[in-house]
Amino acid sequence: MQKSGSSSVLGPGGLDLSQAFFKPVQNTAPPSPTKRQTKISVIGTGNVGMAIAQTILTQDLADELALVDAIPDKLRGEMLDLQHAAAFLPRTNIRASVDYSVTVGSDLCIITAGARQNPGESRLSLLQRNVSLFSKIIPPLANHSPHAILMVVSNPVDVLTYVAWKLSGFPVNRVIGSGTNLDSSRFRFLIADHLDVNAQDVQAYIVGEHGDSSVALWSSISVGGVPILSFLEKQQIAYEKETLEKIHKEVINSAYEVISLKGYTSWAIGYSAANLARSILRDQRKIHPVSVLAKGFHGIDGGDVFLSLPAQLGRGGVLGVTNIHLNEEEAQRLQESAKTILEVQSQLGL
Amino acid sequence: MQKSGSSSVLGPGGLDLSQAFFKPVQNTAPPSPTKRQTKISVIGTGNVGMAIAQTILTQDLADELALVDAIPDKLRGEMLDLQHAAAFLPRTNIRASVDYSVTVGSDLCIITAGARQNPGESRLSLLQRNVSLFSKIIPPLANHSPHAILMVVSNPVDVLTYVAWKLSGFPVNRVIGSGTNLDSSRFRFLIADHLDVNAQDVQAYIVGEHGDSSVALWSSISVGGVPILSFLEKQQIAYEKETLEKIHKEVINSAYEVISLKGYTSWAIGYSAANLARSILRDQRKIHPVSVLAKGFHGIDGGDVFLSLPAQLGRGGVLGVTNIHLNEEEAQRLQESAKTILEVQSQLGL
Amino acid sequence: MQKSGSSSVLGPGGLDLSQAFFKPVQNTAPPSPTKRQTKISVIGTGNVGMAIAQTILTQDLADELALVDAIPDKLRGEMLDLQHAAAFLPRTNIRASVDYSVTVGSDLCIITAGARQNPGESRLSLLQRNVSLFSKIIPPLANHSPHAILMVVSNPVDVLTYVAWKLSGFPVNRVIGSGTNLDSSRFRFLIADHLDVNAQDVQAYIVGEHGDSSVALWSSISVGGVPILSFLEKQQIAYEKETLEKIHKEVINSAYEVISLKGYTSWAIGYSAANLARSILRDQRKIHPVSVLAKGFHGIDGGDVFLSLPAQLGRGGVLGVTNIHLNEEEAQRLQESAKTILEVQSQLGL
Amino acid sequence: MQKSGSSSVLGPGGLDLSQAFFKPVQNTAPPSPTKRQTKISVIGTGNVGMAIAQTILTQDLADELALVDAIPDKLRGEMLDLQHAAAFLPRTNIRASVDYSVTVGSDLCIITAGARQNPGESRLSLLQRNVSLFSKIIPPLANHSPHAILMVVSNPVDVLTYVAWKLSGFPVNRVIGSGTNLDSSRFRFLIADHLDVNAQDVQAYIVGEHGDSSVALWSSISVGGVPILSFLEKQQIAYEKETLEKIHKEVINSAYEVISLKGYTSWAIGYSAANLARSILRDQRKIHPVSVLAKGFHGIDGGDVFLSLPAQLGRGGVLGVTNIHLNEEEAQRLQESAKTILEVQSQLGL
Repeated sequence: MQKSGSSSVLGPGGLDLSQAFFKPVQNTAPPSPTKRQTKISVIGTGNVGMAIAQTILTQDLADELALVDAIPDKLRGEMLDLQHAAAFLPRTNIRASVDYSVTVGSDLCIITAGARQNPGESRLSLLQRNVSLFSKIIPPLANHSPHAILMVVSNPVDVLTYVAWKLSGFPVNRVIGSGTNLDSSRFRFLIADHLDVNAQDVQAYIVGEHGDSSVALWSSISVGGVPILSFLEKQQIAYEKETLEKIHKEVINSAYEVISLKGYTSWAIGYSAANLARSILRDQRKIHPVSVLAKGFHGIDGGDVFLSLPAQLGRGGVLGVTNIHLNEEEAQRLQESAKTILEVQSQLGL
Repeated sequence: MQKSGSSSVLGPGGLDLSQAFFKPVQNTAPPSPTKRQTKISVIGTGNVGMAIAQTILTQDLADELALVDAIPDKLRGEMLDLQHAAAFLPRTNIRASVDYSVTVGSDLCIITAGARQNPGESRLSLLQRNVSLFSKIIPPLANHSPHAILMVVSNPVDVLTYVAWKLSGFPVNRVIGSGTNLDSSRFRFLIADHLDVNAQDVQAYIVGEHGDSSVALWSSISVGGVPILSFLEKQQIAYEKETLEKIHKEVINSAYEVISLKGYTSWAIGYSAANLARSILRDQRKIHPVSVLAKGFHGIDGGDVFLSLPAQLGRGGVLGVTNIHLNEEEAQRLQESAKTILEVQSQLGL
Repeated sequence: MQKSGSSSVLGPGGLDLSQAFFKPVQNTAPPSPTKRQTKISVIGTGNVGMAIAQTILTQDLADELALVDAIPDKLRGEMLDLQHAAAFLPRTNIRASVDYSVTVGSDLCIITAGARQNPGESRLSLLQRNVSLFSKIIPPLANHSPHAILMVVSNPVDVLTYVAWKLSGFPVNRVIGSGTNLDSSRFRFLIADHLDVNAQDVQAYIVGEHGDSSVALWSSISVGGVPILSFLEKQQIAYEKETLEKIHKEVINSAYEVISLKGYTSWAIGYSAANLARSILRDQRKIHPVSVLAKGFHGIDGGDVFLSLPAQLGRGGVLGVTNIHLNEEEAQRLQESAKTILEVQSQLGL
Repeated sequence: MQKSGSSSVLGPGGLDLSQAFFKPVQNTAPPSPTKRQTKISVIGTGNVGMAIAQTILTQDLADELALVDAIPDKLRGEMLDLQHAAAFLPRTNIRASVDYSVTVGSDLCIITAGARQNPGESRLSLLQRNVSLFSKIIPPLANHSPHAILMVVSNPVDVLTYVAWKLSGFPVNRVIGSGTNLDSSRFRFLIADHLDVNAQDVQAYIVGEHGDSSVALWSSISVGGVPILSFLEKQQIAYEKETLEKIHKEVINSAYEVISLKGYTSWAIGYSAANLARSILRDQRKIHPVSVLAKGFHGIDGGDVFLSLPAQLGRGGVLGVTNIHLNEEEAQRLQESAKTILEVQSQLGL
């Protein structure tokens, strides 16, 4: 951790000690401006933002971590709580401020801030307040880190990723939403749990709109490389479509269930965002279902709309979208989601 | 993650699918009873317990993780939230129950449960309620995992570690308190931050009673192997004892500051407990300042009292206590803490 | 690292210092006999054995690592070279001996020892010398670690895994051969390299006999969950079977190419074996193509023969074999391999 | 791994498949030139170079790894052997060439190449051949990566680090020698082994000239933060200076012993170099004993000479040299080493 100013108690003698303790070698040149560190900023230090920040720290994904929140006390408390673990972790420079200048030069900005629904408030009114919030967040972020990748986690994630894209002026490959990356992990967990296999051996996607309208790609499920649907066919095991729909419903209900039980979700979304951060910053070129500009895919052509599709992620952001095959019904559901979202977006005045 | 029963929606066909998908090799023998997995149980799923559980999960320290709490909804919500990340993590079997039988066969039990102070309640009354709570926790834990190591995190940690030792009937090398392991990390962070070095290069101990009466061992501070006090002497840099005391006070205030800012501490204690868990379960034989039976050390001889001293930790628990040199004042402060704690303990009726 | 005896220069005062430095807490009980550490033994410290041992050490998969070889000098040199890195790694107890008693209590024994082909020697003669070598290795290994899992890496791996099974008397789920796990990684690399994706996103199996007769399962290839063959079909991209066969041939040639270029293979087989060790010891329940008793699968029924099939691995060894669908040609090639191997085995007199 | 060209068997249809499989999102911008990856180059693919390269790969320290060697076959064999492990590792782009252009844009270049001593050849003649070798290596390296940090591992490391500095024209903070970082690890291992503690809990430095003239800093030894010499004094344990010298001799003999036993050293130097690479590239600001320009320290003032001193390493290279206290004898030995090296250097005609 870098000088946080918190140890000023060492007094005026402080600087002297540091200077006495280390001496430069002769002819030392200043560090090259190109020797950049990897920097991640997390906007919003609520349960979701902090689960993301702490997972990024534990997994050693960044050399510098900047936190921004509107509430200075909470923000400073979270920063100190992370800094106090310095002796247990590789060194990461952790900073926090209500001022966006702390995010300068970020490689990745993760936005978790969002307004909460007031009792009786309509979804549109809530969304308009969130757009207003983003209009204060995104421009200074984009300004301080013009080469960053933006990852939106706040909900409704698909619309807000569009909003972040519009407000940032960034090329579309540098703006993604965490989308159905977590829904897909829940899907894979339920299948893995059922078969008593490792969830990392299960391939399965949920795509489309994050939430109730998401689309489970049944034909994409494979376990250890064995496509399940054709396996069942060959084994002549009858499978009711109803049963499959039940699993999908259970995925959709997962978030609601956790929220009803503990009040919010945090850990799984923290791991999901860290998983995406790693693929991006370490240029892993892995395929993740995330919210990207879906125009031009699967018959979606009414306008600029973000939906989750399996996309290849790397240091350049979205490197490409996997050309998966959807059946007619699946494509139609995506098109309907797109239409609904476009209607909502048309009311936002962006 | 093992079958959690949550995927019963797959219906009666479920079991069939698993059986159809995998076939045993011929002549397969049942797994040997000695092929044990590493299992950690965390008691209490509040902010501290969950920060510990999540850090253990991220750092892949256990093959099985059991959570226990008295509030079933919160408990199940936390379990599901961790399980949903299965696709992002190495496989860990996560279970949760209000019943201690879920902890059976643990290698390490971490106790974070504790009563909260009621307005106007005396410290003794609070402690007595905690003893009463521990009398419901420790015996079933010890019963289900007779070979486990117990790590107490609940406060006041030194007294409650004694209580856990008494109630468990375990040999003393298998009962430790997280003690000043975190205080020492904060100490190392403040020094590292001041000198702009890596906190892992700073050696520095805070020992004794966890909290306001802790003792900073000034002579133990070294940076990159250079003892600081003798360095200052040789460099003829005058250092006021007052200045050093200020750093120690800042360490003591750290916990209070974080609590006043964010309402509780969680991340740093999570990393601290995971750090201890690793040294124990991977038999690292590293030295940590943790709460151990201090009787017989540094002139403490009035009775069985737990205080933090630099102890070597491994798969056998406490392997030994480092024979550090304390000056007279430091030893005296330890003896006073011991006396105070013994008086409190005498009122507990154990 | 544990006392290796190499520091006896500290003289008779040595023990005193250790005893003076650490003091036990009072009433310390001896460590419980059930507090076992994870132990891996590697037999043979040639290029392959050492690449495996070093990767296991770097990936921190074991608490204790035992090396056995017939050449004491080479053996001690390799042990010291690993031990000298102690300050850069988590603590692992590294031992080495020409005597198998050093392997006592292993959880996993990896056998890399093997005779080299003499000029003009027939394959059968070489094999018989290897069987003779195994008859000196396997019984003492099995004797010292009756609950271990045996992993055979030596070639010809399928026959020698059968030999290890016979000589050990172990249940069949506790004897595996590294088989086509590495061939499959090469296969996945070639496909990933071609598509510029992450090889971990590619699912693809090579099964059957390790070497020239191996079988590539074309229908098992998927990238990011998208089955490639049906993708090509739907995109109406014509693909010649010839082209696919060329990729398979390149995989088969890979080992020959590396050997012709650098004289042997080491790194990739080191990672492959460490990958299997992790799935086994951390009970990951992942699916790997490894050599298992193939009798009863895919129409193989002439006798006890080991061939690589996608198997689920965990702490119990082989937990099950994936019930993949093979087309007629693929099954026939497996049956032919089985027949050839059975003929060879019948000449070994086991 | 990036397209290596090795999969050209996929034929002219190859590119089509990749293009059919991924489609770009609309309005995609080219990747920003500032989105740089972390790149390490290793020069020389002998046992030392490959142990370093493989450890860097396992520890996931670079996004791109370039290998250079004069022998194309060996070089390609090593590259393929590492690439074949792609499915077991995070994605790293591995390249190899006899042409230095493959190293373009490196953040760190590790030089392990060196001439071998011919029978009867004088040390000076050998050194002159190495200087001649470096004159072919360093200028193209510096040319292709003008902002890189150079780490010299080839022996005699102190003189060759000076040579690399001179030939590169780099500022002195960007040229280091691996120096006594490994000797110090061996020192820490011997002490840890003796006390049965974790070597990471042992602080101890060997400084000065790498090899027989190195200087063990007895006063720097501490275990778990307890300085050993003053501990012995306080415990009134007599310790013969002779005994300490024996340990130092054992450290010096370590390299010779390993070479006599297995023919060369590889693993420990591999871990040592990876350890330095991590501190540098992840800006850890840790203190390591490495070969730096020692002029101006401890009375060394006869000229530009490189010797190992505890230096703080980060993304900027050498950030400072720890102002340790040496006693008169220790300083004198350093000065003598400096003198000897300067005499040798004066004969090199640089």
